[in-house]
Order: sequence, then structure tokens, then C-alpha cells
Amino acid sequence: MAGPADSESEIMTAALLVIGDEILSGRTKDKNIGYVAEYLTNIGIDLKEVRIVPDEEPAIVAALNALRSRNTYVFTTGGIGPTHDDITAEAVAKAFGVAIDYHPRAVEILQARLKQTGAVMNEARMRMARMPVGAELVLNKVSAAPGFRIGNVIVMAGVPQVMQVMLDYVAPTLKTGAKMQSETIRADCREGDIGTELGEIASAHAGVIIGSYPFMDEGRFANTHVVLRSRDAQKLAAAKAAVEAMLVRVKAELKQSAAGS
Amino acid sequence: MAGPADSESEIMTAALLVIGDEILSGRTKDKNIGYVAEYLTNIGIDLKEVRIVPDEEPAIVAALNALRSRNTYVFTTGGIGPTHDDITAEAVAKAFGVAIDYHPRAVEILQARLKQTGAVMNEARMRMARMPVGAELVLNKVSAAPGFRIGNVIVMAGVPQVMQVMLDYVAPTLKTGAKMQSETIRADCREGDIGTELGEIASAHAGVIIGSYPFMDEGRFANTHVVLRSRDAQKLAAAKAAVEAMLVRVKAELKQSAAGS
Repeated sequence: MAGPADSESEIMTAALLVIGDEILSGRTKDKNIGYVAEYLTNIGIDLKEVRIVPDEEPAIVAALNALRSRNTYVFTTGGIGPTHDDITAEAVAKAFGVAIDYHPRAVEILQARLKQTGAVMNEARMRMARMPVGAELVLNKVSAAPGFRIGNVIVMAGVPQVMQVMLDYVAPTLKTGAKMQSETIRADCREGDIGTELGEIASAHAGVIIGSYPFMDEGRFANTHVVLRSRDAQKLAAAKAAVEAMLVRVKAELKQSAAGS
Repeated sequence: MAGPADSESEIMTAALLVIGDEILSGRTKDKNIGYVAEYLTNIGIDLKEVRIVPDEEPAIVAALNALRSRNTYVFTTGGIGPTHDDITAEAVAKAFGVAIDYHPRAVEILQARLKQTGAVMNEARMRMARMPVGAELVLNKVSAAPGFRIGNVIVMAGVPQVMQVMLDYVAPTLKTGAKMQSETIRADCREGDIGTELGEIASAHAGVIIGSYPFMDEGRFANTHVVLRSRDAQKLAAAKAAVEAMLVRVKAELKQSAAGS
């Protein structure tokens, strides 16, 4: 529960479980996946898998148990509000095989906020204080209603502004590994022009993950971003130099063959 | 492989498998999930699950086999380009236990397009014609390089403009079920004000899925959208009437209690 990992070489992984019918029906466009992905990458945790499941307990429990057994952390978003379709707390309790109950501190926090806003406590709002027994609160200053953490599972709201402050709250308590560093090279040629050469460089540079992403550039030409990622700065620099040298060579050849044709 | 299902009451389901390191690292923000979700809902196919996995064969194969066994269709996006990190075709072949080979028609299509653009065929570009034996092509007019279909799995590009025309190409061949209809009601009160009542209506209206989604309205007040979904128009109308009557009642009570306090 504190600071960077003892060994900088230890790799911390995470999965994200997005819970919500509204995402699967297309009514709501998810804004959390990209945010969480970038956030975790920046603090040295590898996001390995994302799943989106409906508001159905068996689907949530199955996904949660699959993901928590093979990742350092599992983050969930959605399903912690006051209505009947908010079933994440129950599903998490079931996945961990523990009871669910009102969390006294969560009840206090909700009551204090209701006093400010002039609303009244009722059965629906009390649902937001129900948590698996043994859970610790994940506070948020935006809407007050807390998320929670149990074991390696961190349960957050679905509303992006609330999810983001919950992530900020929990981040300092997470173990993080050596950060993945990355370099992006604009190739100024097409993916298909460099595919074979890039594959050879990837094979020769273990410890560096090389990705190739086509895009349409400002002149509307098919262009390519080569992205290199590594936890080792020296290996990253060596692979980058190899890609740059290859690009000079391939582009000279393309120019020559165009001139000759 | 043709038209609506014999029985309109038959439910067709789908899963979406997004393949790509760049989504999990946060470098690229996915634009396909929301599009596919809305598209499938509109043609009468229920999207039941989405997974995002890295460019790693074991992860792709495991996800594909889990998803294809329990859904009418599985759509994949990403990993069908000309570079070493494009391994979707190999992974799909492995999941189905079939060989992979150059698809003659795909080779022809690629060669014809290269002729137009002045580029040359090479080993990297030939990768885009490799497909599991038995696959049918999914054509696209944008970039020419085809996706494919094998069994109930439809393999599409990751670039949104290309993915979208592939979906248009394959959609007329899909079996579709009774379309999910939906109604959205703006509650003009807070989720917590109606949570209990909404849960009671949800319990009393089998065949209608009721979702509750908080939002901040134009006056910056906490507001709620109630979304009702059903394949049965009559059941949908009955549930909608019940929600509307409940809202009138609850809001009158809130007004009274505010006046009394």
C-alpha cells in the first residue's frame, strides 16, 4: 500500500472493468478507458486488458474474478449510484465471498453532503453507503459519494469527473514499477514500405516493443507513426537509432526507384 | 448468412474484441467501441461484451475463443495491417485451428490498388493478403485491404473510417433479431430522489430494462435521464407511463417538503 515497488524492474499490471448497459447500447460513449490507460502508463502500471460488461451480476462477478487473479490491480468504473441498476458493490462482495453492509464513514459523508444541498437521506441514497465488508473508502470531492477498495480491486464511479478524482485519491497508495518510456517517429512513408524492415528491427531489439500506426498526414498522404516503448532507456535509444537509419535507407531506395520508373 | 431472423423474438448477440497495444497504453483513444455499439443496437443485435487486448497472440486467441462460443457474432478491430505487430489473422487461424495462407482474391485486390498508387508489392504488403483458410473477404473501398469473416467472427481494420465501411459491407449478411427500442425521460430531479421508486417500477415491468443516468443540466443542477429499453412496444409504453406518473408524484412531494421546511 505505499510508494514505488522495491525493485524498479518489477512489473505492475492492471485491468479495467467498465460496467454499464449504456456503454454497450451505444447511448453513452465511454470517456474513461483512454483516460485510465494514459494515467496508469504515466505512473508505471501496465494496463493489460479492458472489459466492458452489462449491469448483470454474473457477468460482473465472472469478469472480476478472471481479472483480479492475474493482475496487480483491477479498476472498475460505473454502477455505484443510488438506483436499482447500480449493482457493482453487491457483485464485488459476491466475487470476494464477503457480506455487504452500510459503511459507517460512508453514511456520515453522505449525510454531511445532503445537509449542504438540502436533500434528504432515503433508502436509495443509503445504497451508496453499502460496501463489501472490509472495504476501504476511496474519497471524492466532486460528488462526495465514495468509491472503495477491497483487496486489489478499486471501485470507482462512471461519471468521468468523479472517476478522475477517485483515481487521484488512490494513485499514491499503488505500487508502481519501472515506467514504460516511449519514442514516436514520424516515418514520412507508408506502413507497407517499411513493414519488413521494421519487423527485422523488432526481432533484433528484445526489450523494446515496436508499434506501427498509419495515419493520413496534413497533405492527405498515407503516413506512419512508429512508436517504440521500453523500460530501458539505452535499449530504447538503440532501437530508435536503428529505425531512423532504416528510414533514411528505405526512403533513398524509394526515391531512386521512383526516378528510375 | 441472410436477412432478419426467422423468428423476430430470437435474440442475436455480439461481442467486440479490440486488438491493440496503442489503446491499452493510452496513445490512441478508441473511436470504434461507441460506433459499433450504436450500429449493432440499431440493426437489432445486442452487444453483450467488449474486450481490449494487447498485440499478443495468446491473449487474442483466449479472448476470441471465449467470446465466439457464447455470442452469435464476434467483431474484431485492429491488427490487420502490413507490419510485424499485425498478428490478428494468425491469431484467428490459431483460434479456429486452421492454416493461414495468401487469399488469391485479396492478393489481386491489393495489386490493383498498388498499381493505382504507384507503390510496389513487397513481403510486408503481402501480409495483408494472409487469411485463415476458409475465410471470406470483407471488402472496403477506403483502403482496399480487405478484412475477412470466418465462422461467426468478423475481422475488421482498426482505422475508424475503414472499420466503418467494413461494417456496412458485412451488415446485410447478418442475422438480426427484434430491435431493442428505447425511450429517454428527463427526470428533472436527482437520481437519489427517485431511486427507490424507480427500482419498484423496474421490478414490476419485466421485459423492460430501466437505466438511470445522472447528468449536470444547463442550469448546473444534478439531473437524471431515465432510459427504458424493450423489444416490446406495449411493455415499453406501460413502463414509460409508470415512470412519468411516478415523477409527477415525487416532484410534488419534494415541492411540498421544501415548502414545509
